[in-house]
Amino acid sequence: MLRFSRFLPSASRRGFDIKEALWSGSLTFQHAVSTSAANLDERSSGKKFASYTVFKGKAALSIHPILPSFSKLESGGSRIERNGSVMLTFFPAVGQRKYDYTKKQLFSLSPTEVGSLISLGPAESCEFFHDPSMKSSHEGQVKKSLSITPLGSDSGYFVNITVLNNVQKTTDRLSVPITKAEFSVMRTALSFALPHIMGWDQVLTHQPAAPASSKPRVERPHPDSEWER
Amino acid sequence: MLRFSRFLPSASRRGFDIKEALWSGSLTFQHAVSTSAANLDERSSGKKFASYTVFKGKAALSIHPILPSFSKLESGGSRIERNGSVMLTFFPAVGQRKYDYTKKQLFSLSPTEVGSLISLGPAESCEFFHDPSMKSSHEGQVKKSLSITPLGSDSGYFVNITVLNNVQKTTDRLSVPITKAEFSVMRTALSFALPHIMGWDQVLTHQPAAPASSKPRVERPHPDSEWER
Amino acid sequence: MLRFSRFLPSASRRGFDIKEALWSGSLTFQHAVSTSAANLDERSSGKKFASYTVFKGKAALSIHPILPSFSKLESGGSRIERNGSVMLTFFPAVGQRKYDYTKKQLFSLSPTEVGSLISLGPAESCEFFHDPSMKSSHEGQVKKSLSITPLGSDSGYFVNITVLNNVQKTTDRLSVPITKAEFSVMRTALSFALPHIMGWDQVLTHQPAAPASSKPRVERPHPDSEWER
Amino acid sequence: MLRFSRFLPSASRRGFDIKEALWSGSLTFQHAVSTSAANLDERSSGKKFASYTVFKGKAALSIHPILPSFSKLESGGSRIERNGSVMLTFFPAVGQRKYDYTKKQLFSLSPTEVGSLISLGPAESCEFFHDPSMKSSHEGQVKKSLSITPLGSDSGYFVNITVLNNVQKTTDRLSVPITKAEFSVMRTALSFALPHIMGWDQVLTHQPAAPASSKPRVERPHPDSEWER
Repeated sequence: MLRFSRFLPSASRRGFDIKEALWSGSLTFQHAVSTSAANLDERSSGKKFASYTVFKGKAALSIHPILPSFSKLESGGSRIERNGSVMLTFFPAVGQRKYDYTKKQLFSLSPTEVGSLISLGPAESCEFFHDPSMKSSHEGQVKKSLSITPLGSDSGYFVNITVLNNVQKTTDRLSVPITKAEFSVMRTALSFALPHIMGWDQVLTHQPAAPASSKPRVERPHPDSEWER
Repeated sequence: MLRFSRFLPSASRRGFDIKEALWSGSLTFQHAVSTSAANLDERSSGKKFASYTVFKGKAALSIHPILPSFSKLESGGSRIERNGSVMLTFFPAVGQRKYDYTKKQLFSLSPTEVGSLISLGPAESCEFFHDPSMKSSHEGQVKKSLSITPLGSDSGYFVNITVLNNVQKTTDRLSVPITKAEFSVMRTALSFALPHIMGWDQVLTHQPAAPASSKPRVERPHPDSEWER
Repeated sequence: MLRFSRFLPSASRRGFDIKEALWSGSLTFQHAVSTSAANLDERSSGKKFASYTVFKGKAALSIHPILPSFSKLESGGSRIERNGSVMLTFFPAVGQRKYDYTKKQLFSLSPTEVGSLISLGPAESCEFFHDPSMKSSHEGQVKKSLSITPLGSDSGYFVNITVLNNVQKTTDRLSVPITKAEFSVMRTALSFALPHIMGWDQVLTHQPAAPASSKPRVERPHPDSEWER
Repeated sequence: MLRFSRFLPSASRRGFDIKEALWSGSLTFQHAVSTSAANLDERSSGKKFASYTVFKGKAALSIHPILPSFSKLESGGSRIERNGSVMLTFFPAVGQRKYDYTKKQLFSLSPTEVGSLISLGPAESCEFFHDPSMKSSHEGQVKKSLSITPLGSDSGYFVNITVLNNVQKTTDRLSVPITKAEFSVMRTALSFALPHIMGWDQVLTHQPAAPASSKPRVERPHPDSEWER
């Protein structure tokens, strides 16, 4: 029998408890979040923020989705300009249930990387490599890798980030064990998010016709647009 | 061949029939529901309520989702303040197709507990422990556990709740057998609900730009926000 | 290699082609649909109708979802009054690509029956029994059963309806073979429909606060409503 | 351990990088897209466009969903007139990271073909045959086939299109290898799109009652509409 409480620190059996402990015990984290949110909101009032965060002994991992952006076309429609993504934020523990958000490390998953993660079998691994400065003069200065490796016995995964900074001569590693239940949340949330970060939900949402365009569409082409276009 | 009608009391082959039998035969239950709904609505007019309920010989189990709450940020955006949840309500049978809603027992599933439930294999079990008074002076007075154990032969699960009250010196146990078809409904509904109780659907819904903000966003940062932020 | 075209009549390789053949060749069917839709619309203007239909040699099967209904509560909220369903409509072939819609047979799937169908393994079967007059004086006059049995070799299912009318002394049987690809469409569409026919999408949709209710909600109870309620 | 970067050209490890390379390096492609979008928008202002594109050595494959169309009924409701689809666009490489969009080949997947694709097992194949001129005097002039065959070792699929033109005496073949991660994106996006191209999301979306219709619906039929209709 799986007893999921075994995988969590004793205070973390209830989601709310972890959070309350954190809010009261870790001012550093709370403050950092507020600041970050404020910065974002200056250019995005009305936006909403929600993440899924797991707090473990040595580090915490927080995941949140980022919307795609569309650009207007001359004809009045719009086309996706940049895919959304799913941002992974790691931050190290600096004490019992205290985390230092200022030492966070970020890793942004593209749609294909999300596809890789949600199709991962129980005994499979995957690894992604990012160079934030690729194709610039700073290419190669910083190298990031994210690996997801099984804990064994179908009990979850290790999520590891390594950030190698060739300028500052530093290597940061953070690793967060994820239970099978937590990975199920991530898989479900990421599967839900994927069509949204690709913009497909916006394409597939029925747009009510504008009230003025009451004239019939006379010249509609044959449905088999495979051929005509 | 699975014949699902074998798992249900004879009158329960049709969903509506159960409900009608209950509405007419169990005033206690009907009244309790109305009261409960009324209490909720005093502080939530406009809200909608729907649950998935299975009525079995010794007890019934009802499941309904609860929305997360968001708090406003100074900048105009909002951030999730408290995750939603999925509430399980058990109530004992007090006669044929009569259930006593006043003796109900509640168990609220966090997102991670929902993740555990929806990833449960046919032969797997899981168990959750809650102390509603954790971190208060009443900690340990009441202990709740929920376990989900396989019925065997891939035919469904037993869902069991145990509530141990150390003050009143009582132990309440309720157990509801769930067929594979009913668990499929729960798994599908909970998988649907999970991104919503996490608030991700609200984050990922495209918010039409406010009509007044027609000025272009000049200073948009580089897309690779992994690095800059 | 699966070649799905082998499972379909030659004209049915393209979805549109079947439909066009039907629209032009079977006035009976077309007329019946229009009548049926008109009846519905008298009490539901603004409603939309869409179904998934497979046309086979001896019969056709059409599937469409039906919304749940909610009833207003005194407090302004609303509670689900009746679950939605998924309606299966069978109609016999009366010639090549001609179907007689007036001889249709209906079978309405409850949420739990939908759960049974979408969790069906490749070699599994299920069977449902309905008595449309259950608990009335006509109980037992008509008995319906729906069975879904594997075609073998993971290539799809037979969907069979039997309607036994003890008054008219008739037994109607219609059977439609469903390819694996068609069952995949049904499974996906029914999994999508399930939370909607249960009303959970309406419960989980964030309702923007009414503009007038600007006063803060002072007396919000503790989040751990497991215990208090 | 799977290292997905092995399946991609070195510059394609990051989704954005591919795109940027393409936008700057392939004016042909960029121009063609703009033209195509403009044509569409003349008859569909307000529409949104988003696709999922994989760029490989010899060709690229782009996938985007197309909405269904509804027609008004006299009663005020509407009925689906034509299913939506998922359009696959192949275009050949004409240099390193340069693709010629003018030589594109299109293949439109019906709902059932989408169902076939999303239920494909790791070692399974499928093949579809289209004749864009079927049932016209040009029938047989052009034959298209799309096949999806496994790469082996559960590492993805080859997606191949063959277009045989009996008039121009030409045969065009384009083939794009798809990694397991990319196929996971397609499967997830297509599973999301399927109920939408079938119009079921529009059927299942609760339509708020019109404000004028405040009179009660007196003559509502018995819920068990299986029988009465």
